[in-house]
Amino acid sequence: MENRNNHALIQALLDCALACEHCASSCLQEEDLNMMVDCIKLDRDCADICTQAARLLQRESVIGKQYLLLCEEICRLCAAECGKHDHEHCRQCAVTCEECADACHAHHEPIHQD
Amino acid sequence: MENRNNHALIQALLDCALACEHCASSCLQEEDLNMMVDCIKLDRDCADICTQAARLLQRESVIGKQYLLLCEEICRLCAAECGKHDHEHCRQCAVTCEECADACHAHHEPIHQD
Amino acid sequence: MENRNNHALIQALLDCALACEHCASSCLQEEDLNMMVDCIKLDRDCADICTQAARLLQRESVIGKQYLLLCEEICRLCAAECGKHDHEHCRQCAVTCEECADACHAHHEPIHQD
Amino acid sequence: MENRNNHALIQALLDCALACEHCASSCLQEEDLNMMVDCIKLDRDCADICTQAARLLQRESVIGKQYLLLCEEICRLCAAECGKHDHEHCRQCAVTCEECADACHAHHEPIHQD
Repeated sequence: MENRNNHALIQALLDCALACEHCASSCLQEEDLNMMVDCIKLDRDCADICTQAARLLQRESVIGKQYLLLCEEICRLCAAECGKHDHEHCRQCAVTCEECADACHAHHEPIHQD
Repeated sequence: MENRNNHALIQALLDCALACEHCASSCLQEEDLNMMVDCIKLDRDCADICTQAARLLQRESVIGKQYLLLCEEICRLCAAECGKHDHEHCRQCAVTCEECADACHAHHEPIHQD
Repeated sequence: MENRNNHALIQALLDCALACEHCASSCLQEEDLNMMVDCIKLDRDCADICTQAARLLQRESVIGKQYLLLCEEICRLCAAECGKHDHEHCRQCAVTCEECADACHAHHEPIHQD
Repeated sequence: MENRNNHALIQALLDCALACEHCASSCLQEEDLNMMVDCIKLDRDCADICTQAARLLQRESVIGKQYLLLCEEICRLCAAECGKHDHEHCRQCAVTCEECADACHAHHEPIHQD
Protein backbone atom coordinates (compact mmCIF):
# COMPACT_ATOMS: atom_id res chain seq x y z
CA MET A 1 0.00 0.00 0.00
CA GLU A 2 3.02 2.23 0.33
CA ASN A 3 4.47 4.86 -1.91
CA ARG A 4 7.74 4.75 0.03
CA ASN A 5 9.42 7.73 -1.54
CA ASN A 6 6.71 10.12 -0.49
CA HIS A 7 5.16 8.46 2.52
CA ALA A 8 5.89 11.20 5.08
CA LEU A 9 4.86 13.95 2.67
CA ILE A 10 1.57 12.22 1.87
CA GLN A 11 0.83 11.83 5.57
CA ALA A 12 1.60 15.54 6.15
CA LEU A 13 -0.83 16.46 3.38
CA LEU A 14 -3.62 14.27 4.75
CA ASP A 15 -3.02 15.50 8.30
CA CYS A 16 -3.30 19.05 7.01
CA ALA A 17 -6.54 18.28 5.16
CA LEU A 18 -8.03 16.77 8.32
CA ALA A 19 -6.89 19.74 10.44
CA CYS A 20 -8.55 22.13 7.97
CA GLU A 21 -11.81 20.17 7.90
CA HIS A 22 -11.89 20.19 11.70
CA CYS A 23 -11.00 23.88 11.91
CA ALA A 24 -13.71 24.89 9.42
CA SER A 25 -16.39 22.94 11.28
CA SER A 26 -15.22 24.32 14.61
CA CYS A 27 -15.12 27.90 13.31
CA LEU A 28 -18.76 27.52 12.26
CA GLN A 29 -19.62 26.82 15.94
CA GLU A 30 -17.82 29.90 17.31
CA GLU A 31 -19.71 32.89 18.70
CA ASP A 32 -17.46 35.39 16.94
CA LEU A 33 -18.42 33.84 13.62
CA ASN A 34 -18.03 37.05 11.61
CA MET A 35 -14.33 37.07 12.54
CA MET A 36 -13.87 33.53 11.20
CA VAL A 37 -15.07 33.98 7.61
CA ASP A 38 -11.66 34.06 5.95
CA CYS A 39 -10.52 31.15 8.08
CA ILE A 40 -13.49 29.02 6.98
CA LYS A 41 -12.86 29.85 3.31
CA LEU A 42 -9.14 29.11 3.42
CA ASP A 43 -9.69 25.92 5.41
CA ARG A 44 -11.97 24.64 2.70
CA ASP A 45 -9.58 25.43 -0.15
CA CYS A 46 -6.63 24.03 1.78
CA ALA A 47 -8.45 20.79 2.64
CA ASP A 48 -9.42 20.29 -1.01
CA ILE A 49 -5.97 21.03 -2.42
CA CYS A 50 -3.99 19.02 0.16
CA THR A 51 -6.25 16.00 -0.34
CA GLN A 52 -5.77 16.22 -4.10
CA ALA A 53 -2.01 16.59 -3.71
CA ALA A 54 -1.80 13.48 -1.53
CA ARG A 55 -3.68 11.45 -4.11
CA LEU A 56 -1.58 12.71 -7.04
CA LEU A 57 1.62 11.77 -5.21
CA GLN A 58 0.30 8.38 -4.16
CA ARG A 59 -0.55 7.54 -7.78
CA GLU A 60 2.85 8.88 -8.92
CA SER A 61 1.30 11.48 -11.20
CA VAL A 62 3.59 13.36 -13.58
CA ILE A 63 2.18 16.61 -12.21
CA GLY A 64 2.37 15.71 -8.51
CA LYS A 65 5.54 17.61 -7.67
CA GLN A 66 4.44 20.74 -9.55
CA TYR A 67 1.11 20.61 -7.74
CA LEU A 68 2.99 21.02 -4.47
CA LEU A 69 3.78 24.61 -5.38
CA LEU A 70 0.09 25.48 -5.24
CA CYS A 71 -0.30 23.39 -2.16
CA GLU A 72 2.46 25.27 -0.38
CA GLU A 73 0.83 28.58 -1.32
CA ILE A 74 -2.60 27.71 0.09
CA CYS A 75 -1.03 26.17 3.22
CA ARG A 76 0.90 29.40 3.90
CA LEU A 77 -2.24 31.50 3.39
CA CYS A 78 -4.28 29.26 5.67
CA ALA A 79 -1.57 29.17 8.35
CA ALA A 80 -1.32 32.98 8.34
CA GLU A 81 -5.08 33.38 8.78
CA CYS A 82 -5.43 30.69 11.44
CA GLY A 83 -2.48 32.25 13.25
CA LYS A 84 -4.56 35.40 13.87
CA HIS A 85 -7.03 33.55 16.09
CA ASP A 86 -6.75 32.15 19.63
CA HIS A 87 -9.11 29.24 19.23
CA GLU A 88 -7.36 25.92 19.88
CA HIS A 89 -8.49 24.50 16.51
CA CYS A 90 -7.03 27.53 14.72
CA ARG A 91 -3.77 27.30 16.60
CA GLN A 92 -3.41 23.60 15.80
CA CYS A 93 -4.42 24.15 12.19
CA ALA A 94 -1.82 26.92 11.77
CA VAL A 95 0.95 24.60 13.01
CA THR A 96 -0.15 21.73 10.80
CA CYS A 97 -0.47 23.96 7.72
CA GLU A 98 2.98 25.43 8.30
CA GLU A 99 4.54 21.97 8.61
CA CYS A 100 2.77 20.86 5.47
CA ALA A 101 3.91 23.98 3.59
CA ASP A 102 7.51 23.21 4.56
CA ALA A 103 7.16 19.61 3.39
CA CYS A 104 5.69 20.80 0.07
CA HIS A 105 8.48 23.33 -0.32
CA ALA A 106 11.12 20.63 0.14
CA HIS A 107 9.66 18.40 -2.59
CA HIS A 108 8.10 20.66 -5.21
CA GLU A 109 9.22 21.04 -8.81
CA PRO A 110 8.92 24.35 -10.70
CA ILE A 111 5.98 25.12 -12.95
CA HIS A 112 6.60 26.50 -16.40
CA GLN A 113 5.01 29.97 -16.62
CA ASP A 114 4.81 32.31 -19.58
CA MET B 1 -6.88 18.39 14.73
CA GLU B 2 -8.67 15.31 16.01
CA ASN B 3 -12.17 14.08 15.55
CA ARG B 4 -11.78 11.72 18.49
CA ASN B 5 -14.98 9.74 18.06
CA ASN B 6 -14.11 8.63 14.59
CA HIS B 7 -10.33 8.77 14.48
CA ALA B 8 -9.67 5.08 13.77
CA LEU B 9 -12.44 4.91 11.18
CA ILE B 10 -11.15 8.00 9.37
CA GLN B 11 -7.65 6.51 9.26
CA ALA B 12 -9.02 3.24 7.89
CA LEU B 13 -10.80 5.18 5.14
CA LEU B 14 -7.70 7.15 4.18
CA ASP B 15 -5.51 4.02 4.27
CA CYS B 16 -7.99 2.36 1.95
CA ALA B 17 -7.97 5.31 -0.45
CA LEU B 18 -4.16 5.24 -0.58
CA ALA B 19 -4.10 1.46 -1.12
CA CYS B 20 -6.54 1.85 -4.01
CA GLU B 21 -4.55 4.68 -5.63
CA HIS B 22 -1.40 2.58 -5.40
CA CYS B 23 -3.13 -0.54 -6.70
CA ALA B 24 -4.60 1.29 -9.71
CA SER B 25 -1.23 2.77 -10.68
CA SER B 26 0.50 -0.57 -10.22
CA CYS B 27 -2.15 -2.44 -12.23
CA LEU B 28 -1.49 -0.02 -15.11
CA GLN B 29 2.15 -1.22 -15.13
CA GLU B 30 1.30 -4.94 -15.25
CA GLU B 31 1.87 -7.03 -18.37
CA ASP B 32 -1.49 -8.78 -18.08
CA LEU B 33 -3.21 -5.42 -18.27
CA ASN B 34 -6.37 -6.72 -19.89
CA MET B 35 -7.01 -8.83 -16.79
CA MET B 36 -6.77 -5.77 -14.55
CA VAL B 37 -9.46 -3.55 -16.08
CA ASP B 38 -12.16 -4.15 -13.46
CA CYS B 39 -9.57 -3.75 -10.70
CA ILE B 40 -8.47 -0.36 -12.06
CA LYS B 41 -12.07 0.84 -12.31
CA LEU B 42 -13.05 -0.28 -8.82
CA ASP B 43 -9.84 1.08 -7.31
CA ARG B 44 -10.69 4.50 -8.68
CA ASP B 45 -14.26 4.52 -7.41
CA CYS B 46 -13.18 3.16 -4.02
CA ALA B 47 -10.41 5.77 -3.63
CA ASP B 48 -12.85 8.58 -4.46
CA ILE B 49 -15.61 7.37 -2.16
CA CYS B 50 -13.37 6.51 0.82
CA THR B 51 -11.65 9.91 0.61
CA GLN B 52 -15.00 11.65 0.58
CA ALA B 53 -16.25 9.56 3.50
CA ALA B 54 -13.20 10.46 5.58
CA ARG B 55 -13.77 14.15 4.96
CA LEU B 56 -17.50 14.00 5.73
CA LEU B 57 -16.79 12.26 9.05
CA GLN B 58 -13.99 14.66 9.94
CA ARG B 59 -16.29 17.66 9.42
CA GLU B 60 -19.07 15.87 11.37
CA SER B 61 -21.49 15.98 8.46
CA VAL B 62 -25.10 15.01 9.10
CA ILE B 63 -24.84 12.53 6.24
CA GLY B 64 -21.47 11.00 7.18
CA LYS B 65 -22.77 7.84 8.81
CA GLN B 66 -25.24 7.15 6.00
CA TYR B 67 -22.47 7.64 3.48
CA LEU B 68 -20.63 4.70 5.07
CA LEU B 69 -23.20 2.31 3.64
CA LEU B 70 -22.08 3.21 0.10
CA CYS B 71 -18.51 3.13 1.22
CA GLU B 72 -18.88 -0.38 2.59
CA GLU B 73 -20.46 -1.51 -0.68
CA ILE B 74 -17.65 -0.22 -2.91
CA CYS B 75 -15.00 -1.56 -0.50
CA ARG B 76 -16.54 -5.05 -0.66
CA LEU B 77 -16.68 -4.91 -4.48
CA CYS B 78 -13.08 -3.73 -4.71
CA ALA B 79 -11.85 -6.33 -2.19
CA ALA B 80 -13.57 -9.12 -4.13
CA GLU B 81 -12.00 -8.06 -7.42
CA CYS B 82 -8.51 -7.49 -5.97
CA GLY B 83 -8.78 -10.88 -4.28
CA LYS B 84 -8.84 -12.56 -7.70
CA HIS B 85 -5.30 -11.45 -8.52
CA ASP B 86 -1.90 -12.59 -7.21
CA HIS B 87 -0.09 -9.26 -7.56
CA GLU B 88 1.20 -8.05 -4.20
CA HIS B 89 -0.52 -4.64 -4.60
CA CYS B 90 -3.86 -6.38 -5.24
CA ARG B 91 -3.45 -8.69 -2.28
CA GLN B 92 -2.65 -5.76 0.02
CA CYS B 93 -5.49 -3.68 -1.40
CA ALA B 94 -7.97 -6.53 -0.86
CA VAL B 95 -7.01 -6.79 2.81
CA THR B 96 -7.19 -3.02 3.35
CA CYS B 97 -10.56 -2.73 1.59
CA GLU B 98 -11.99 -5.59 3.64
CA GLU B 99 -10.84 -3.97 6.90
CA CYS B 100 -12.30 -0.65 5.80
CA ALA B 101 -15.60 -2.30 4.85
CA ASP B 102 -15.82 -3.86 8.30
CA ALA B 103 -15.12 -0.48 9.93
CA CYS B 104 -17.82 1.16 7.79
CA HIS B 105 -20.25 -1.63 8.65
CA ALA B 106 -19.69 -1.08 12.36
CA HIS B 107 -20.46 2.66 12.20
CA HIS B 108 -23.00 3.19 9.42
CA GLU B 109 -26.53 4.47 9.82
CA PRO B 110 -29.38 3.29 7.57
CA ILE B 111 -30.48 5.27 4.53
CA HIS B 112 -34.13 5.95 4.01
CA GLN B 113 -35.22 4.32 0.72
CA ASP B 114 -38.63 4.40 -0.95
CA MET C 1 -17.46 13.50 -24.69
CA GLU C 2 -21.02 12.42 -24.03
CA ASN C 3 -22.48 9.80 -21.79
CA ARG C 4 -25.77 9.97 -23.67
CA ASN C 5 -27.87 7.88 -21.31
CA ASN C 6 -27.23 10.14 -18.37
CA HIS C 7 -26.44 13.49 -19.95
CA ALA C 8 -29.33 15.47 -18.43
CA LEU C 9 -28.84 13.90 -15.02
CA ILE C 10 -25.11 14.68 -15.02
CA GLN C 11 -25.83 18.28 -15.93
CA ALA C 12 -28.39 18.54 -13.13
CA LEU C 13 -25.81 17.23 -10.67
CA LEU C 14 -23.14 19.69 -11.80
CA ASP C 15 -25.61 22.59 -11.81
CA CYS C 16 -26.51 21.67 -8.25
CA ALA C 17 -22.86 21.51 -7.19
CA LEU C 18 -22.26 24.98 -8.66
CA ALA C 19 -25.38 26.39 -7.01
CA CYS C 20 -24.21 25.04 -3.65
CA GLU C 21 -20.68 26.44 -4.04
CA HIS C 22 -22.15 29.84 -4.89
CA CYS C 23 -24.66 29.70 -2.03
CA ALA C 24 -21.98 28.79 0.54
CA SER C 25 -19.71 31.64 -0.54
CA SER C 26 -22.62 34.09 -0.58
CA CYS C 27 -23.86 32.97 2.86
CA LEU C 28 -20.39 33.73 4.22
CA GLN C 29 -20.87 37.37 3.09
CA GLU C 30 -24.27 37.80 4.75
CA GLU C 31 -24.72 39.99 7.83
CA ASP C 32 -26.96 37.45 9.55
CA LEU C 33 -24.14 34.91 9.36
CA ASN C 34 -25.14 33.03 12.51
CA MET C 35 -28.45 32.15 10.82
CA MET C 36 -26.60 30.65 7.84
CA VAL C 37 -24.42 28.05 9.56
CA ASP C 38 -26.49 24.99 8.66
CA CYS C 39 -26.88 26.28 5.12
CA ILE C 40 -23.10 26.63 4.69
CA LYS C 41 -22.50 23.12 6.04
CA LEU C 42 -25.14 21.46 3.87
CA ASP C 43 -24.02 23.41 0.79
CA ARG C 44 -20.53 22.03 1.21
CA ASP C 45 -21.64 18.42 1.63
CA CYS C 46 -24.10 18.73 -1.24
CA ALA C 47 -21.50 20.24 -3.60
CA ASP C 48 -19.04 17.45 -2.78
CA ILE C 49 -21.53 14.63 -3.18
CA CYS C 50 -23.20 15.93 -6.37
CA THR C 51 -19.81 16.46 -8.03
CA GLN C 52 -18.77 12.93 -7.13
CA ALA C 53 -22.07 11.53 -8.40
CA ALA C 54 -21.67 13.28 -11.77
CA ARG C 55 -18.20 11.82 -12.18
CA LEU C 56 -19.27 8.29 -11.22
CA LEU C 57 -22.09 8.38 -13.76
CA GLN C 58 -19.88 9.84 -16.47
CA ARG C 59 -17.35 7.03 -16.01
CA GLU C 60 -20.23 4.47 -15.91
CA SER C 61 -19.30 3.23 -12.47
CA VAL C 62 -21.03 0.09 -11.17
CA ILE C 63 -21.98 2.05 -8.06
CA GLY C 64 -23.20 5.23 -9.79
CA LYS C 65 -26.92 4.54 -9.59
CA GLN C 66 -26.75 3.46 -5.95
CA TYR C 67 -24.79 6.62 -5.14
CA LEU C 68 -27.79 8.65 -6.31
CA LEU C 69 -29.72 7.55 -3.24
CA LEU C 70 -27.26 9.42 -1.00
CA CYS C 71 -27.22 12.28 -3.42
CA GLU C 72 -31.00 12.62 -3.30
CA GLU C 73 -30.87 12.61 0.51
CA ILE C 74 -28.32 15.44 0.78
CA CYS C 75 -30.11 17.45 -1.94
CA ARG C 76 -33.41 17.22 -0.02
CA LEU C 77 -31.70 18.28 3.21
CA CYS C 78 -29.96 21.20 1.51
CA ALA C 79 -33.12 22.30 -0.29
CA ALA C 80 -35.08 22.27 2.97
CA GLU C 81 -32.49 24.42 4.75
CA CYS C 82 -32.03 26.87 1.88
CA GLY C 83 -35.81 27.15 1.63
CA LYS C 84 -35.89 28.74 5.10
CA HIS C 85 -33.98 31.81 3.94
CA ASP C 86 -34.98 34.76 1.77
CA HIS C 87 -31.57 35.42 0.21
CA GLU C 88 -31.70 35.11 -3.56
CA HIS C 89 -28.78 32.64 -3.59
CA CYS C 90 -30.60 30.43 -1.07
CA ARG C 91 -33.84 30.57 -3.02
CA GLN C 92 -32.06 29.60 -6.25
CA CYS C 93 -30.09 26.89 -4.51
CA ALA C 94 -33.24 25.39 -3.00
CA VAL C 95 -34.86 25.14 -6.45
CA THR C 96 -31.76 23.61 -8.04
CA CYS C 97 -31.32 21.10 -5.21
CA GLU C 98 -34.95 20.06 -5.43
CA GLU C 99 -34.69 19.51 -9.19
CA CYS C 100 -31.52 17.53 -8.72
CA ALA C 101 -33.11 15.41 -5.97
CA ASP C 102 -35.99 14.58 -8.32
CA ALA C 103 -33.56 13.62 -11.09
CA CYS C 104 -31.63 11.39 -8.67
CA HIS C 105 -34.86 9.81 -7.45
CA ALA C 106 -35.86 8.93 -11.02
CA HIS C 107 -32.58 7.13 -11.76
CA HIS C 108 -31.36 5.60 -8.52
CA GLU C 109 -30.98 1.91 -7.77
CA PRO C 110 -31.53 0.45 -4.29
CA ILE C 111 -28.67 -0.16 -1.88
CA HIS C 112 -28.45 -3.47 -0.10
CA GLN C 113 -28.70 -2.85 3.68
CA ASP C 114 -28.48 -5.37 6.46
CA MET D 1 -26.51 30.11 -9.23
CA GLU D 2 -24.17 32.02 -11.48
CA ASN D 3 -20.66 33.23 -11.04
CA ARG D 4 -21.03 35.58 -14.00
CA ASN D 5 -17.43 36.64 -14.37
CA ASN D 6 -16.19 33.13 -14.89
CA HIS D 7 -19.19 31.30 -16.25
CA ALA D 8 -17.68 30.26 -19.61
CA LEU D 9 -14.39 29.26 -18.04
CA ILE D 10 -16.13 27.13 -15.41
CA GLN D 11 -18.16 25.37 -18.10
CA ALA D 12 -14.98 24.71 -20.13
CA LEU D 13 -13.38 23.15 -17.05
CA LEU D 14 -16.36 20.92 -16.32
CA ASP D 15 -16.66 19.90 -19.99
CA CYS D 16 -13.00 18.97 -19.92
CA ALA D 17 -13.43 16.91 -16.74
CA LEU D 18 -16.33 15.02 -18.31
CA ALA D 19 -14.40 14.42 -21.54
CA CYS D 20 -11.51 13.00 -19.53
CA GLU D 21 -13.75 10.72 -17.45
CA HIS D 22 -15.35 9.40 -20.64
CA CYS D 23 -12.00 8.98 -22.38
CA ALA D 24 -10.48 7.04 -19.47
CA SER D 25 -13.44 4.66 -19.27
CA SER D 26 -13.42 4.18 -23.05
CA CYS D 27 -9.66 3.57 -23.15
CA LEU D 28 -10.16 0.79 -20.59
CA GLN D 29 -12.45 -0.96 -23.12
CA GLU D 30 -10.02 -0.75 -26.05
CA GLU D 31 -8.24 -3.83 -27.40
CA ASP D 32 -4.90 -2.04 -27.66
CA LEU D 33 -5.02 -1.35 -23.94
CA ASN D 34 -1.26 -1.35 -23.44
CA MET D 35 -1.04 1.64 -25.79
CA MET D 36 -3.54 3.60 -23.70
CA VAL D 37 -1.84 3.55 -20.29
CA ASP D 38 -0.50 7.11 -20.36
CA CYS D 39 -3.81 8.35 -21.70
CA ILE D 40 -5.73 6.71 -18.83
CA LYS D 41 -3.35 8.20 -16.25
CA LEU D 42 -3.45 11.72 -17.67
CA ASP D 43 -7.23 11.60 -18.12
CA ARG D 44 -7.58 10.85 -14.43
CA ASP D 45 -5.30 13.65 -13.27
CA CYS D 46 -6.88 16.11 -15.69
CA ALA D 47 -10.44 15.22 -14.61
CA ASP D 48 -9.50 15.68 -10.95
CA ILE D 49 -7.69 18.98 -11.45
CA CYS D 50 -10.25 20.56 -13.80
CA THR D 51 -13.10 19.66 -11.45
CA GLN D 52 -11.25 21.22 -8.55
CA ALA D 53 -10.47 24.35 -10.59
CA ALA D 54 -14.13 24.81 -11.52
CA ARG D 55 -15.16 24.61 -7.88
CA LEU D 56 -12.46 27.03 -6.70
CA LEU D 57 -13.55 29.59 -9.29
CA GLN D 58 -17.22 29.12 -8.51
CA ARG D 59 -16.59 29.81 -4.83
CA GLU D 60 -14.36 32.78 -5.74
CA SER D 61 -11.33 31.33 -3.98
CA VAL D 62 -8.29 33.56 -3.55
CA ILE D 63 -6.20 30.84 -5.17
CA GLY D 64 -8.52 30.07 -8.09
CA LYS D 65 -6.65 32.05 -10.74
CA GLN D 66 -3.26 30.69 -9.72
CA TYR D 67 -4.68 27.18 -9.80
CA LEU D 68 -5.38 27.68 -13.50
CA LEU D 69 -1.66 27.53 -14.22
CA LEU D 70 -1.54 23.92 -13.06
CA CYS D 71 -4.77 23.22 -14.83
CA GLU D 72 -3.39 24.54 -18.12
CA GLU D 73 -0.31 22.34 -17.70
CA ILE D 74 -2.24 19.10 -17.16
CA CYS D 75 -4.68 19.96 -19.98
CA ARG D 76 -1.76 20.46 -22.42
CA LEU D 77 -0.18 17.15 -21.35
CA CYS D 78 -3.47 15.30 -21.68
CA ALA D 79 -4.25 16.87 -25.07
CA ALA D 80 -0.81 15.90 -26.40
CA GLU D 81 -1.22 12.27 -25.32
CA CYS D 82 -4.83 11.95 -26.55
CA GLY D 83 -3.72 13.49 -29.84
CA LYS D 84 -1.51 10.45 -30.51
CA HIS D 85 -4.51 8.10 -30.74
CA ASP D 86 -7.19 7.65 -33.41
CA HIS D 87 -10.01 6.60 -31.10
CA GLU D 88 -12.93 8.98 -31.35
CA HIS D 89 -12.99 9.51 -27.55
CA CYS D 90 -9.29 10.45 -27.60
CA ARG D 91 -9.76 12.84 -30.51
CA GLN D 92 -12.67 14.57 -28.78
CA CYS D 93 -10.82 14.68 -25.48
CA ALA D 94 -7.75 16.25 -27.12
CA VAL D 95 -9.88 19.04 -28.59
CA THR D 96 -11.70 19.69 -25.32
CA CYS D 97 -8.47 19.70 -23.29
CA GLU D 98 -6.84 22.12 -25.74
CA GLU D 99 -9.81 24.50 -25.53
CA CYS D 100 -9.75 24.29 -21.75
CA ALA D 101 -5.99 24.94 -21.66
CA ASP D 102 -6.50 28.08 -23.75
CA ALA D 103 -9.28 29.27 -21.45
CA CYS D 104 -7.06 28.67 -18.40
CA HIS D 105 -4.18 30.50 -20.08
CA ALA D 106 -6.35 33.55 -20.70
CA HIS D 107 -7.44 33.84 -17.07
CA HIS D 108 -4.57 32.60 -14.92
CA GLU D 109 -2.54 34.62 -12.47
CA PRO D 110 1.17 33.93 -11.81
CA ILE D 111 2.33 31.81 -8.91
CA HIS D 112 5.11 33.05 -6.71
CA GLN D 113 8.05 30.59 -6.97
CA ASP D 114 11.34 30.61 -5.16
